[in-house]
Amino acid sequence: MSPSGIRISQLGEFGLIQRIKEAMPAPHADVVVGIGDDVAVLKTSGSKYLLATCDAQVENVHFVRGNITPYQLGRRIAAINLSDIAAMAGTPLWALVSLALPGELESVFVDALYEGMFEQLRLAGAAIVGGNLSRIDKDIVIDLCLLGNVVPENLLLRSGARVGDLILATGWLGDSKAGLELIQRPKLIVSDASRRQVEQKHLVPQPRLREGQQLGASHLVHAMVDISDGLLGDIGHICRASRVGAEIWVGKLPISPACKEVAQVVGEDASHWALTGGEDYELLFTISPETSTEIQRMMKEHTETCCHIVGKILDAKEGIQVCLDDGNSLPLPGGSAGWDHFRS
Amino acid sequence: MSPSGIRISQLGEFGLIQRIKEAMPAPHADVVVGIGDDVAVLKTSGSKYLLATCDAQVENVHFVRGNITPYQLGRRIAAINLSDIAAMAGTPLWALVSLALPGELESVFVDALYEGMFEQLRLAGAAIVGGNLSRIDKDIVIDLCLLGNVVPENLLLRSGARVGDLILATGWLGDSKAGLELIQRPKLIVSDASRRQVEQKHLVPQPRLREGQQLGASHLVHAMVDISDGLLGDIGHICRASRVGAEIWVGKLPISPACKEVAQVVGEDASHWALTGGEDYELLFTISPETSTEIQRMMKEHTETCCHIVGKILDAKEGIQVCLDDGNSLPLPGGSAGWDHFRS
Repeated sequence: MSPSGIRISQLGEFGLIQRIKEAMPAPHADVVVGIGDDVAVLKTSGSKYLLATCDAQVENVHFVRGNITPYQLGRRIAAINLSDIAAMAGTPLWALVSLALPGELESVFVDALYEGMFEQLRLAGAAIVGGNLSRIDKDIVIDLCLLGNVVPENLLLRSGARVGDLILATGWLGDSKAGLELIQRPKLIVSDASRRQVEQKHLVPQPRLREGQQLGASHLVHAMVDISDGLLGDIGHICRASRVGAEIWVGKLPISPACKEVAQVVGEDASHWALTGGEDYELLFTISPETSTEIQRMMKEHTETCCHIVGKILDAKEGIQVCLDDGNSLPLPGGSAGWDHFRS
Repeated sequence: MSPSGIRISQLGEFGLIQRIKEAMPAPHADVVVGIGDDVAVLKTSGSKYLLATCDAQVENVHFVRGNITPYQLGRRIAAINLSDIAAMAGTPLWALVSLALPGELESVFVDALYEGMFEQLRLAGAAIVGGNLSRIDKDIVIDLCLLGNVVPENLLLRSGARVGDLILATGWLGDSKAGLELIQRPKLIVSDASRRQVEQKHLVPQPRLREGQQLGASHLVHAMVDISDGLLGDIGHICRASRVGAEIWVGKLPISPACKEVAQVVGEDASHWALTGGEDYELLFTISPETSTEIQRMMKEHTETCCHIVGKILDAKEGIQVCLDDGNSLPLPGGSAGWDHFRS
């Protein structure tokens, strides 16, 4: 096949992003962080940096109409964008919503979708300020662009992780994937409480805004991302941006009893979901070992959120290792094992 | 049919926007202009207002893959967003691009699409700083969110038109619709020069950024929009926001010889295209009659763009009138005769 005949499904999402980055003109001086990160960081005429991010939900790719209510879908699209702002230690402010909708869609669907977005943004102190409506023949596309700001000193990026840092994550990992399993296979039998917990986590994740802001203001965190692609995929983002390696300690992964219950019923390994499931929208960050107790205590006190140590930053040449309980470790090819929009 | 069963194709784009506006929580104090306008105007920590807009191009709704090259499509999506910033007298700065692409799409399509966006944004002094890539089953969706800024004193809005104002437009009206006709019916016989002019105007419109900035800096303009929905649709936006009426003088419409040539071949009225064709992306603005000569001279001198007087602002109770050469006038029902994404 000629080079011109490469399909984007062969390149994959990250291959395509790399290609776009290489073709791009050099950024202006007012761009602190540009394309390739989840959030653009921009210098305005004011003292704070402007943050800008967008994320879409596409029907039959990210959601199936019968499996999520339009209200939940509205909350979800807002939540995943809010999570991106949280990962920069930022404050969300304004959203623009671009919808492509088939003409036969009922207006109550759109009403409930907006109600969900309004509510999730309101909880975060943000609001919809504009957008666009288009017709589309088939699949609904919801694209939300979220703007926020951050004090420059508090900004956290993917780069900045140092060899010897501990890697911490907020909350539970794997719940979202467990929720997706139950939604796709509704006849599986699990306890009501477990079902509620993991389905809710999948459908309407809670963006860790206060946690992100606390971590930024502490000035003790070296690098941060949110976990959208899966723990392994997202630690890969930190490792590439920081030019380091990492080991993840499987025995230390924070996995909820509900996730374990679902994994057992499905006959899968809950650790695998925690490592690669994605869409948990927890924060993943690195700090010096000597500050870990202080950070964990501060987070528990100010946000009631537990932060768990899940691994350690290594030298770049070590790559990314998954350390099993028995002492063995599995190196990862390429260091990226997360969700890829074109390959999955 | 029960109220819950209304389809969005019945409500129409503007009905749907109205419904969303009514359901929306009250905006924060930092929102100068919010939902319902083409561009949101936002107060940041700096001295300038932030401008934010988004506009999408959906395959088989806004474009057909064989009728536009991916490079032209990239320039077009950037141009229509730049035009929105131009209409506020703003300066474009940063773009976020959200793409939903079918996996079988060839990567050269994406390369050329970005090349077009890079080029059009570069010409305007702006750059892509982020975005998102998603898979979609069928139609390509390109959503571009553009950020810019404006000195508060120079900002121009839809509101502000005063009874007695003259209505002016930059450039030719109707060329874009003529171009669309030729693209859809390639066997029509017209001169090469006319074909090039109108097809180019349709495929890659020129955003009137310098013109918008000049008009804003003059402090003589009362209200402004860009002509995306058609002259009648867009003067309707000004009339509703300014609570005024308007008359449009058909005999004064700036129609190019090329547009007239195409209209004659098609057997249509070029004036009709100029009034309702849409997608010309010219600027439409209102000024006091005594400043019109000065504005026209200044624009010609600083931007080489002709501004034509196309009508007059009336009292709200007059509605929107189309005045024909024979002295008769046609009142418009509802005042909106432009492009509606869900009804067209």
